[in-house]
Amino acid sequence: MIKVGIVGATGYAGGELARLLLQREDIEIRWFGSKSYVGQEYTSLYQNMYQMTDAVCGSDDMEQISREVDVIFTATPQGLCASLIDEEILSRVKVIDLSADFRIKDVAVYEEWYKLRHGAPRFIDEAVYGLPEINREKIKGARLIANPGCYPTCSFLTIYPLVKEGIIDHSTLIVDAKSGTSGAGRGAKVANLYCEVNESIKAYGVAGHRHTPEIEEQLTLMAGEPVRISFTPHLVPMDRGILITAYASLAKEVSYEDVKAVYDRYYTDERFVRVFKKDVCPETRWVKGSNFVDVNFKLDPRTGRIVMMGAMDNMVKGAAGQAVQNMNLMFGLPEDKGLKLVPMFP
Amino acid sequence: MIKVGIVGATGYAGGELARLLLQREDIEIRWFGSKSYVGQEYTSLYQNMYQMTDAVCGSDDMEQISREVDVIFTATPQGLCASLIDEEILSRVKVIDLSADFRIKDVAVYEEWYKLRHGAPRFIDEAVYGLPEINREKIKGARLIANPGCYPTCSFLTIYPLVKEGIIDHSTLIVDAKSGTSGAGRGAKVANLYCEVNESIKAYGVAGHRHTPEIEEQLTLMAGEPVRISFTPHLVPMDRGILITAYASLAKEVSYEDVKAVYDRYYTDERFVRVFKKDVCPETRWVKGSNFVDVNFKLDPRTGRIVMMGAMDNMVKGAAGQAVQNMNLMFGLPEDKGLKLVPMFP
Amino acid sequence: MIKVGIVGATGYAGGELARLLLQREDIEIRWFGSKSYVGQEYTSLYQNMYQMTDAVCGSDDMEQISREVDVIFTATPQGLCASLIDEEILSRVKVIDLSADFRIKDVAVYEEWYKLRHGAPRFIDEAVYGLPEINREKIKGARLIANPGCYPTCSFLTIYPLVKEGIIDHSTLIVDAKSGTSGAGRGAKVANLYCEVNESIKAYGVAGHRHTPEIEEQLTLMAGEPVRISFTPHLVPMDRGILITAYASLAKEVSYEDVKAVYDRYYTDERFVRVFKKDVCPETRWVKGSNFVDVNFKLDPRTGRIVMMGAMDNMVKGAAGQAVQNMNLMFGLPEDKGLKLVPMFP
Amino acid sequence: MIKVGIVGATGYAGGELARLLLQREDIEIRWFGSKSYVGQEYTSLYQNMYQMTDAVCGSDDMEQISREVDVIFTATPQGLCASLIDEEILSRVKVIDLSADFRIKDVAVYEEWYKLRHGAPRFIDEAVYGLPEINREKIKGARLIANPGCYPTCSFLTIYPLVKEGIIDHSTLIVDAKSGTSGAGRGAKVANLYCEVNESIKAYGVAGHRHTPEIEEQLTLMAGEPVRISFTPHLVPMDRGILITAYASLAKEVSYEDVKAVYDRYYTDERFVRVFKKDVCPETRWVKGSNFVDVNFKLDPRTGRIVMMGAMDNMVKGAAGQAVQNMNLMFGLPEDKGLKLVPMFP
Repeated sequence: MIKVGIVGATGYAGGELARLLLQREDIEIRWFGSKSYVGQEYTSLYQNMYQMTDAVCGSDDMEQISREVDVIFTATPQGLCASLIDEEILSRVKVIDLSADFRIKDVAVYEEWYKLRHGAPRFIDEAVYGLPEINREKIKGARLIANPGCYPTCSFLTIYPLVKEGIIDHSTLIVDAKSGTSGAGRGAKVANLYCEVNESIKAYGVAGHRHTPEIEEQLTLMAGEPVRISFTPHLVPMDRGILITAYASLAKEVSYEDVKAVYDRYYTDERFVRVFKKDVCPETRWVKGSNFVDVNFKLDPRTGRIVMMGAMDNMVKGAAGQAVQNMNLMFGLPEDKGLKLVPMFP
Repeated sequence: MIKVGIVGATGYAGGELARLLLQREDIEIRWFGSKSYVGQEYTSLYQNMYQMTDAVCGSDDMEQISREVDVIFTATPQGLCASLIDEEILSRVKVIDLSADFRIKDVAVYEEWYKLRHGAPRFIDEAVYGLPEINREKIKGARLIANPGCYPTCSFLTIYPLVKEGIIDHSTLIVDAKSGTSGAGRGAKVANLYCEVNESIKAYGVAGHRHTPEIEEQLTLMAGEPVRISFTPHLVPMDRGILITAYASLAKEVSYEDVKAVYDRYYTDERFVRVFKKDVCPETRWVKGSNFVDVNFKLDPRTGRIVMMGAMDNMVKGAAGQAVQNMNLMFGLPEDKGLKLVPMFP
Repeated sequence: MIKVGIVGATGYAGGELARLLLQREDIEIRWFGSKSYVGQEYTSLYQNMYQMTDAVCGSDDMEQISREVDVIFTATPQGLCASLIDEEILSRVKVIDLSADFRIKDVAVYEEWYKLRHGAPRFIDEAVYGLPEINREKIKGARLIANPGCYPTCSFLTIYPLVKEGIIDHSTLIVDAKSGTSGAGRGAKVANLYCEVNESIKAYGVAGHRHTPEIEEQLTLMAGEPVRISFTPHLVPMDRGILITAYASLAKEVSYEDVKAVYDRYYTDERFVRVFKKDVCPETRWVKGSNFVDVNFKLDPRTGRIVMMGAMDNMVKGAAGQAVQNMNLMFGLPEDKGLKLVPMFP
Repeated sequence: MIKVGIVGATGYAGGELARLLLQREDIEIRWFGSKSYVGQEYTSLYQNMYQMTDAVCGSDDMEQISREVDVIFTATPQGLCASLIDEEILSRVKVIDLSADFRIKDVAVYEEWYKLRHGAPRFIDEAVYGLPEINREKIKGARLIANPGCYPTCSFLTIYPLVKEGIIDHSTLIVDAKSGTSGAGRGAKVANLYCEVNESIKAYGVAGHRHTPEIEEQLTLMAGEPVRISFTPHLVPMDRGILITAYASLAKEVSYEDVKAVYDRYYTDERFVRVFKKDVCPETRWVKGSNFVDVNFKLDPRTGRIVMMGAMDNMVKGAAGQAVQNMNLMFGLPEDKGLKLVPMFP
């Protein structure tokens, strides 16, 4: 029985962790940590889990939690995990941080984009970027996981094989992303009220969204040279789901079959990445509630470009599901344990 | 390994059966029967299950199917199952019919409300009304199950303890029901287009909806005398979920604790019925994707009435989930096998 | 040119008043009063009106406003208007209060249901309940209008002809109401976030909603004896619209034609109440953006009941549109001036 | 009084024309033409207009209609208008064609992208591309208007000043478009059912959407040399609205003020194009129900690119509203007559 603590359990990502872990018999959630709801029954906030747990929310005191569990998930605002973590905690438990604190290796870049002073730069090097599709072996031995961002996970997995194989000219890369509203979190803000989001679509964070350097850093590792992209997220009136539409000029002449072969080579053995058949576009409805990323592409000979598409549930593969996938690897369990979820449609 | 055939596999209820059964290791779906898509890959219609099955849609020839499987689910339009079934088929396989063909014991009532001539009246008596909460033992030994309707399941479970215990005056019963749009099926009709349903709510089938006699028949069995109700369904702009708001005058003076005790007595041991705490209203978001029915009530001393509320996922407990629950019972499996699904929120 | 001040201009009802009044050439909005946004450009909050006004939000100082305008609309939380109004203000301007402060004539009832001490009981008698369909003449001469609540407007207009004509037994009246989310206001609350409201429906305020006594008081006036109802509102995942489904036992034997004749008699000359043809159910999509209330009914001989249905845009006829209708009457203008809006579909 | 005929009155664009024209006192809609509903009351299909017209649907016989009206709007599938129009009709009435038949001047391009043989190529030259912001004077004298497509209107108005002024390198132009579902029409197709569209987003027509050559042809006219773009539309779960996010590399060094000055120069006198203030992104909710196009841009010095954004109601400025704007110009009326609609929010 693996004992789990969740810090930030009352946010949407925390709630999704609870959803995924409560269906498992090899896991016990020992701690539902919260800032605002200490002492309240957890299911009074997530009535969907009524009768599945009778836990009461605890504090977010990681020192104390680390004495009671085997692994801590931090689904907390930027900066919090870095401010709480220390060697003692890491010596006792594994930590999977769903915030951005340890994702970016260049601390100056982190501090510039996040407008924060990093609280624990000494752990940045140690932290493993928790994308199993590229760092599987490192994850297995890690103490501290930087669980990737939602947009970066979907963008990277959609694009990286073509960057790595030199098929696209990465200097032309444009990523137009669309996300459901759960990505905005459970905080009470006018901008996220039903009537503000419903029946509308908008771009936000144009030319300045914090996930940009995260995507760039990972693609840079693949390209072997600096990659700089345009990244524009949009807010879509739906609960869950991210869709990536990425554009780039082709670096060489390729056929449909050439590109398909690349994707297949990278993903045939990846359980959670599905390469669709020719001309079938990814749609977020096909991944809802699951850990899948669906990808496909279309060549456009008129313009010499390729359009790459990826769809993912931002709450699962984009947050809680990927965190569980990382946990499975860290504890020597089958990577897909508890994640064999058939997407729910409609 | 239980071998399963689904007739009507390409409708929403059929798709939900596939979702629930594909996550099980003790089940093999051998037949995806369809009227319109014979020969097409099943996942071309349900891309969410891509790579989880490579099945091709077959016909709806129940005679043939019955030679290849252990149990057939018929998720088909009214009248079809009754027109296809016969003694030979029933001697070979168990049949769980998700249509209304065998739900109503009084064939005249069926024919009046459904405007159909019943195709197999000889099996009506044998068919067991598949609501495990009241017919658990009969279901275990049945060959033919009439899987209850979505509205009847939610209405009945919300109301029946108070009818049976004589707490309410059933002659005053009014059931105001609200359903998500998946209940309308996957047929191409203008009335169910996105722009027709979105941003609107309407009543339909007022004073004439076919689920009325089904609810009445079951409540009559509980009351021991004829029950006649007002039942009004409404279409709500959401995918899944049914909410029942039922009104009745109290037949005697009761306190909150009295009524709560009744619900608790009936449902404490029922895994799939959750009685909420005082003043917590059921909401469809708390049951999405799960087999739960959430119920609660509110006394109104000003009017001498009680308001009973129930929420359920029409696709799961209201259709496919209940059908699987019935299958589990028929095959001697744990009743909740494959149904321990944590509701998905948001 | 009528000069208008809006107190509470930044809420949804205030925004709707601005939408309706900015399209008129005989109106000048002189004051956009606000509590939280004083000094901010109004269109920074309502970008839809960009370039249509360059106003900056002012305070909610009614004394000051009353010196600059001819009429003040107060679209403010309960209690505010009553706490600000006085004889001096009323001697200078007309006041149309969209809150509940002056709707209920029995101050004890108001204070019980609203848990507030009434700030200006001396004006309650003078205030006219601003439902033009019943109080048209009184409204014309009024200084202070209590603009009806959204649920009461739709409920009352759907039901009252049958109460007044003694067609229904009002002791059996049950009103099941459904509302879009704009009715919950623009305040930042978790319960009204997109992901909390979307894909769900719930009852709220069961047996205790504050609009209950308002509906009862008006129906009592029609019946000539005390009317007590069950009233249950529900929150629906859509922006606008209220649907009323009301149930009552018939007090006498009536045919479809009898009841239709009653509705026609009351409403043929009412521009904003549309009685639908037989068997056409009101739907909120048919009134969106307009000042209409659509009504219809269905007799149910099986139960001896009648089902009455009404649909309305809660923001227009349920709030700002009705307020404008009242203003038109008070200023001797055509009642439908600026309100001849064709409902927007889809 | 201008007498109007609408061919294709029962589709969404036809319904929107009726909405806009029924609120005018200088217009009489004489003919509601339909293919499928001849003989049915128009308001039985558009109950929102109940009591505003008692018209019965007529045929789509343009010859006959042309004898009864002054102007015909054809809101019909591609190819129909071209197959029905002739010199006689054009000699009697003005025709505003909302289909694509006369938008593209190069008939070979039309036939390649639309897979149709053009039925009346002799009128292509005469037809004026009905975008008042660029062709105002020509429209005034035209007999036949090719009303622009929804995506082209929004894309072109968002981008063209920067193409014309040489600010962007048009060879790098990428247009990522998002549309509400009304753009898909009122036909009964499974893909447009509520449960298929809701809670999902997808790209479609990737590298092959028919609006691509229309945008290219118009931009080519502005650039004075061939423009070729990448254009990808997406389906968004909302009724109305188009959002354009367009990307291009800058052709020269420019400041925010430089670019803002260009937009202002082109659009200050344009009533229906609103250039937003710095950093305020267009959102479709701010234009709902109105004839506005809202535009803005963001420079991205990191990549040397500019992001251009435009929002529009696809049913109004993208179809019916623009058609009315053209009609106003053709009949010597104020261009904004009947179009001074304040956008409806929420």
